Amino acid sequence: MSSHPAKMQRVVKWYPPAYDIRVETVPIPEIVEPDDAIVKIKLAGLCGSDLHIYRGHEDVDAPLICGHELIGEVVALGSSFHPGATGRPELYSSLKVGDKVVSPFTVSCGECHFCRVGFTCRCIHSTLFGIPTLPGGQAQYARIPKAGGTLFSLTALAQSTAGALEIADSSLLLLADILPTGVFAAVQALQHPKLSPILTGSAYPSIQSLPNRILTLAVVGLGPVGVCAAVGLLHLMEDIRAEKDLVCQVVAIDPNESRRKKMEAIYAKIGGQDKQCCTFVVAAVDEAKELAKSWTGGAGCNAVLEVVGNNSALELAYDLVQPFGIISSVGVHQAPPIPFTGRDVYNKNASFDFGRCPVRAMFPLALEVLIKRQDVFGGIGEDASLIEKIVSFDQAVESYGLFDKGKCGKILFDPWL
Amino acid sequence: MSSHPAKMQRVVKWYPPAYDIRVETVPIPEIVEPDDAIVKIKLAGLCGSDLHIYRGHEDVDAPLICGHELIGEVVALGSSFHPGATGRPELYSSLKVGDKVVSPFTVSCGECHFCRVGFTCRCIHSTLFGIPTLPGGQAQYARIPKAGGTLFSLTALAQSTAGALEIADSSLLLLADILPTGVFAAVQALQHPKLSPILTGSAYPSIQSLPNRILTLAVVGLGPVGVCAAVGLLHLMEDIRAEKDLVCQVVAIDPNESRRKKMEAIYAKIGGQDKQCCTFVVAAVDEAKELAKSWTGGAGCNAVLEVVGNNSALELAYDLVQPFGIISSVGVHQAPPIPFTGRDVYNKNASFDFGRCPVRAMFPLALEVLIKRQDVFGGIGEDASLIEKIVSFDQAVESYGLFDKGKCGKILFDPWL
Repeated sequence: MSSHPAKMQRVVKWYPPAYDIRVETVPIPEIVEPDDAIVKIKLAGLCGSDLHIYRGHEDVDAPLICGHELIGEVVALGSSFHPGATGRPELYSSLKVGDKVVSPFTVSCGECHFCRVGFTCRCIHSTLFGIPTLPGGQAQYARIPKAGGTLFSLTALAQSTAGALEIADSSLLLLADILPTGVFAAVQALQHPKLSPILTGSAYPSIQSLPNRILTLAVVGLGPVGVCAAVGLLHLMEDIRAEKDLVCQVVAIDPNESRRKKMEAIYAKIGGQDKQCCTFVVAAVDEAKELAKSWTGGAGCNAVLEVVGNNSALELAYDLVQPFGIISSVGVHQAPPIPFTGRDVYNKNASFDFGRCPVRAMFPLALEVLIKRQDVFGGIGEDASLIEKIVSFDQAVESYGLFDKGKCGKILFDPWL
Repeated sequence: MSSHPAKMQRVVKWYPPAYDIRVETVPIPEIVEPDDAIVKIKLAGLCGSDLHIYRGHEDVDAPLICGHELIGEVVALGSSFHPGATGRPELYSSLKVGDKVVSPFTVSCGECHFCRVGFTCRCIHSTLFGIPTLPGGQAQYARIPKAGGTLFSLTALAQSTAGALEIADSSLLLLADILPTGVFAAVQALQHPKLSPILTGSAYPSIQSLPNRILTLAVVGLGPVGVCAAVGLLHLMEDIRAEKDLVCQVVAIDPNESRRKKMEAIYAKIGGQDKQCCTFVVAAVDEAKELAKSWTGGAGCNAVLEVVGNNSALELAYDLVQPFGIISSVGVHQAPPIPFTGRDVYNKNASFDFGRCPVRAMFPLALEVLIKRQDVFGGIGEDASLIEKIVSFDQAVESYGLFDKGKCGKILFDPWL
């Protein structure tokens, strides 16, 4: 069944309790369950949420193969993929050895209640790549459980979406996690019914007409996912903004100056104020608070996208948002209690949407943004590129260290360098 | 300006630190601001959130006139109501001395950003009746600030809504707080985009069709507001349930047996399973947890209406709700921190909508429910009546004590008995 060229592979491993990254040689994974695929990995991402493991914040006490973003080629398939499989997700009958695939960062079967409604990241078989029980993507090969539900076939996609396969692998890899997650943060905010008075011009919950509407939004955190959220938000606002009497203004916030400069370069690259539908200002924390107040007569933002995953980011989002506002939080939060009292949230009529992006369900919209915004997501190492560089596993230890300190942007590993 | 028949009135007062209710004689209020009205009160409600003050949980250290639910007659109006007022909410030109009015439990100007979009309970001039700086409705007279934005004129309503004034004052009083608040709890849940896959049959966030949908909901707390939430939910589900392939099931929960019996009597009165569109089961806490699990194959409820306002109710709601579920919380929460960690809410993709009902905005929908459900909201003291009795201020001390202990249902005061 296996077409592996060798029995051993190089991988990036993490050892407890924290900050211990090693490159090791381990056995290549094999098919275990009938629904498995084995993927030969072309590129693997280093993601902000890898840092939670790295820093020892995830209560993990066993070593693991890191990473949850991967693009590659199918080299082996379990028996479920043999001809004649019926009533299973389409990929069980169409996926072939040799197909090019991206894997979302979590497993989803495509068959349970949660998968069918689109909440794929809460599949009843859900598991995250890069944990002790499921080796991650910073490797030369990975085993993909429930592969007929989990994987995206880029080979199949190329037949239906013109141009999809002209995109570089480094760019397509962003579909594994951070681009859908950023778009999800924006979708969650913009779909919330508490925004509908401003978006539709009809007062809540009835139909009184509202003239001269102003929508004020904030993005908290401009790491790679935050940039995806900001670019995704601007993309989604284009349709919404078609009406003349809706003004949109966005403040994008990070305390880290190099991240702010990256965001500014990206905004300039995509056309700036001339081509974008929103006023868009990049700011440090205090400046952003002042701006949100002055834009809204003291009321605050209609919605805040929280793309960091710690309590100081949540508190900033709460400070920025107005009564009846929405906090769309896709940051990977940890053990500390939510930093609000019952009185806080009651007195602000606060709405919160927390949690992980259902990447599998967000894929079509994320792909649309990826294709349109190749000026941002296509390049490597330019001022306005999201991706900073592609490195070998030999630079894994250094890369984790730099990323942990906010001293580099999005880094990808080529396991074959 | 004043047509008061006397200079003094009887009121129900609360004294700090807690559990100290006294009936006293104090001066009748007078017009202070041009936008004020003085209302002669016919009936005043005792509400679950009065108990937060009663128990000393609101950090209040000065005596106050209690209550925030009132119906009555306008006996004096400030100069803003004189003929010729333009550009103000309609009631500034149409409200007259002698008009019958209900006041929402908070002041709203009708002119600020929040009022215009419908978030009236967060008006920039918002203030609650029954606090040291704004005397409440358990009195013979009350001063209503921003009365042109705040009050509902039932006199004006009678001209546009057939039957509205045939409803008893005791029933119309429910529009001040608890009926709109209950309906708001249901609206917040049903409008949330995370329910849309089940309600519309289109997978999130795209348009894949979903057959055989099942919507499972819970109502936590069956005090008077919880009953309003349950009845409001059944009302709203009738329209939604028109499609054949949507099954709806609701579990309504309270640890208090007399409250469960009241809810069961009300459900039987409104037609039970034969006439209602949902399977509806009233249950104690443990039984409800089992039921929600067995109904959903272990997944949990799609949405939970939390109508209590303490952490044990929030924790129960969180236990009951499924991943990607919604907690619509209208309970008046206090000083304790929200009882969830960041990891809890991330790992469940939980959505929360907290806070106070914008009564002024919910009024049309609440009135629709009130008119339709006179079998529940019209009677007094029957098994299936929401309102238990109307008493004089002489029974105020006893009534607060019984209500505090969960030993009575909804009580109204007639200040003239």
